[in-house]
Amino acid sequence: MNAARALQEAPVDVILIDKHNYHLFQPLLYQVATAGLSPTDIAYPVRAIFRKQKNLEFHLAEVTRIDVDENCVQTSMGPVKYEYLIVAVGGETNYFGVESVAENGFDLKSLQDAVSIRNHILSMFELAEQVEDPEERMRLRTIVVVGGGPTGVECAGAISELVRLVLQKDFPNLEPSETRIILLEMMDRLLPAFPESLSRKASQKLQQKRVEVHFQSAVTSYDGRRVELKDGDSIDAATLIWAAGVRASSLLNEIGMPQGRQGRVVVEPTLQVPGYPNIYVIGDAAYMEDGDQPLPMVAPVAIQQAKVAARNIRRTIEGRELVLFEYKDPGSLATIGRNAAVARVKGINFSGFVAWLVWLVVHLIWLVGFRNRLLVMVNWIWDYFLYDRGVRLISGTPRSLYPEEIKEIEAS
Amino acid sequence: MNAARALQEAPVDVILIDKHNYHLFQPLLYQVATAGLSPTDIAYPVRAIFRKQKNLEFHLAEVTRIDVDENCVQTSMGPVKYEYLIVAVGGETNYFGVESVAENGFDLKSLQDAVSIRNHILSMFELAEQVEDPEERMRLRTIVVVGGGPTGVECAGAISELVRLVLQKDFPNLEPSETRIILLEMMDRLLPAFPESLSRKASQKLQQKRVEVHFQSAVTSYDGRRVELKDGDSIDAATLIWAAGVRASSLLNEIGMPQGRQGRVVVEPTLQVPGYPNIYVIGDAAYMEDGDQPLPMVAPVAIQQAKVAARNIRRTIEGRELVLFEYKDPGSLATIGRNAAVARVKGINFSGFVAWLVWLVVHLIWLVGFRNRLLVMVNWIWDYFLYDRGVRLISGTPRSLYPEEIKEIEAS
Repeated sequence: MNAARALQEAPVDVILIDKHNYHLFQPLLYQVATAGLSPTDIAYPVRAIFRKQKNLEFHLAEVTRIDVDENCVQTSMGPVKYEYLIVAVGGETNYFGVESVAENGFDLKSLQDAVSIRNHILSMFELAEQVEDPEERMRLRTIVVVGGGPTGVECAGAISELVRLVLQKDFPNLEPSETRIILLEMMDRLLPAFPESLSRKASQKLQQKRVEVHFQSAVTSYDGRRVELKDGDSIDAATLIWAAGVRASSLLNEIGMPQGRQGRVVVEPTLQVPGYPNIYVIGDAAYMEDGDQPLPMVAPVAIQQAKVAARNIRRTIEGRELVLFEYKDPGSLATIGRNAAVARVKGINFSGFVAWLVWLVVHLIWLVGFRNRLLVMVNWIWDYFLYDRGVRLISGTPRSLYPEEIKEIEAS
Repeated sequence: MNAARALQEAPVDVILIDKHNYHLFQPLLYQVATAGLSPTDIAYPVRAIFRKQKNLEFHLAEVTRIDVDENCVQTSMGPVKYEYLIVAVGGETNYFGVESVAENGFDLKSLQDAVSIRNHILSMFELAEQVEDPEERMRLRTIVVVGGGPTGVECAGAISELVRLVLQKDFPNLEPSETRIILLEMMDRLLPAFPESLSRKASQKLQQKRVEVHFQSAVTSYDGRRVELKDGDSIDAATLIWAAGVRASSLLNEIGMPQGRQGRVVVEPTLQVPGYPNIYVIGDAAYMEDGDQPLPMVAPVAIQQAKVAARNIRRTIEGRELVLFEYKDPGSLATIGRNAAVARVKGINFSGFVAWLVWLVVHLIWLVGFRNRLLVMVNWIWDYFLYDRGVRLISGTPRSLYPEEIKEIEAS
C-alpha cells in the first residue's frame, strides 16, 4: 500500500494485486481474537483507500507463482505482466516443524484466525458450564499462548482481561481458580526487542493479571487436548495460540532466488534482487542486515522500504542513481492491558500509564480510515470504563478441538 | 428473551436454550448484507442481557426434538426436563418447493446469510471488473430480490444505494447502465400490510432509485446464472435474494401437534397447545387468528405473546385464571433508503422524511444494548453524510455461483 501510494505521481501504471479486498491492521488483531473489536473495525476496503489515485488499478486475486524470467505474475485471475515488480507478500506463521501445533493450535495472522480464536474460547467456556468433572472443566478453561514477543504478550494480557473482567461476570458458576492462562517462552525473558528492565516489568504485570509466565519452555506437540513440553512436562489445555514465529511467505520458495534466514529473499542495499534489477522485495519478505543483525520483521521496516523501492523505480525511469535503504528505528511499543504498556522510543524507556496512552494514540493514528479510528475509539472508551468486551459472539462454525458433543454445538 | 425476562420475579427456575450465544436484531440484517453495518453491531450476547437475572440459566445448545409426553427437550448438549415449556423457535425461509432457489439463491435469516450476501455481491463486482464480455459483466452485476414485503423492499433499496452511491465510486470503469437491481413480486403491489397509497409510494421511490419493480412475477427456478419466471421470461443474474416467504421452524413438524398455515402450531387463546396445558407456543411458531386473518409473523406479535405466556405460567402456579391473548397492532414501518420510508401508525399513514426519522428512532430504541445503539448510530450518521458503506469487505470464503476462476478468488 505504501509503495503504491508513493508511486501516485510517477509516470507509471500501478497494478495492486491482493487476495483480500481490504487492508488489515494486524497490530490490533489480538483485540478481535479477544472480543474487544469487531473484525470490520480493523479492516479497510482497498478500493476506498485508492479511490483518488488515478494511475492505480486494483486486482482482487491470489498470486500463485512469479515467473521472474518472463516478467509475469501468475494469479488466480490470470497472468499479469510487469515492467517493475515490488514483492511485498509478507510473512506467515513459522511452526518450526511442530506439525501437531499447526493442525490443532491457532495462529493469529488473518481476520479469520482472530474470529476463530474468539469463537473457540467462548465455546470452551460455554461447554465447561455444562461439564461435571472439575479437571475437564479446568482443561476447557486453560488457554496456552506460545511466544513471548509483542503478539504473545499482548494476546495473553488481553485474554486475561477478557476472562477475569468479563467472562467471570457472564458465567456466575465459574470459579476463578478453574481458569488458567499460561504464556510459554522458549528463552528466559519476554519482549527481546526491549531492554531487560522493561521485559521484567512486562512479565510482572502479566503475573499480576494472573497469567502464568513460564520461561525456557518449548512446545514439542499438541493434540488439541494436551501440550507436551521439551522438559517432559505437559499442560492440559483446550486452546493453544501460537505466536512464536514468523517466516517469509512460502510463495518465495519457488522463485529460485537466494533466501536468508526465515525464508526471506536476500536483497541489495537498493532493495533490488541480485540479477533482477526490475524486481524489488520489501518488508517481511526481504532479508537485509543492519549492522550484524537482520532487520526485524515489523511494519516500520516494511513501510520505510516501500517508500525507497518506489523512489528507486522513479529514479530508474528518470535515469538517476538509486538510493540505498537505511533503517530508522522509530522504537517499540507493547501493551499488556489496562493502563499498562512498555515503550522504547528514541533511546528513552518508559512503562505504565504514560506508555499505555502513547500506545493508544499511536495505534489510533496508524489505523487507516477516520471511520475505523472513530469506531475503535468508541469501543476502547466503552470497554475501559465499563469493563466490557462487546463482541463476545460465537459466530459461524468454530473449529472444533473436542469430540462429538462440542462438534454439535459448534456446527450449529 | 421477552418471556424469560417476564419470569424474572416468578417463583421458577428459567432455562433459556438457544443455538446462538447472541440475540440477533433481525430488522437490520439487510444492512449487514449491504455493507452498512458490521454483524456485531446487531448481535448482543445473551449472557450480557441476563447477567442480573438470578433465576435464569443459559444453555448454548441446539434443540433437536421435543418429547412432549416426557416433558423433555432433547438438545445437542443432552436432554433438558421441564415443568412448563415456552416454544419460541421462530420461522425459517419458505421456498414453496422451488428447490433450485434454495440451493443457488440467498436468504436473509441469519448473520451468516447476511455476510454471505455481502461477500457475494462484492465478489461479483470484483470479478466483473476483469471480464471482457459486456453481457457477462451485466449478468455479474444483476441482483434479483424476490418478494415485495418489508424485507424485499428494504433490501432492494439498500442494494441500490450500495451500488449507486458507493460501488460506483469504487469501480471507476463501472457503467451505471451495466448494473441491474430487480425486485420481483408475485402479487400486484408491494408491502401488503400497508394501505395501497403507501404501496404505490414505495414502488415509485424504488423506481427513482433505479430498482426495476416487476409485479405478477413468480420465480420457477434459478440455477445460479438465470432466473426463470412463470410467464416464460428469464433474467440473467449472478445474485438472487429470496425474501418471498416464511414458515414456522421445521422442528415443529415432528412433535405431532395440529399445525395451521405455514406449519405454525395451532394454539388456544391462552397460547397453550390443546391437550398440553404446560406447553405454550408463541411468535412465528404459533398459529392464531385475529378476526378471520392469522396473526402476522412479526416481532410485535411474538413480544406481546411472550409476556402473556409468562403471565399465564405465573397465574397457573398461583392457581388463578389464565388470560387470553389479544393483539395490539402497533403499526408498520418500512424504509426504502435515504429520507424515504412509509409508516402506518395508529390509523395514520405517512411517508417521506418524517416516516424515515420515525423508522430510525424506533429501530435504535428496539436494538438491545446501549453500545450497539451507539455504534449503529455512528455508522448511520457517517453513511448518511458521507454516502459511504464502511463494511464492504469480502471476508472468509464467499459461496461461489460461478465456475473455476471465481472459486479460486473466493476460496482465498
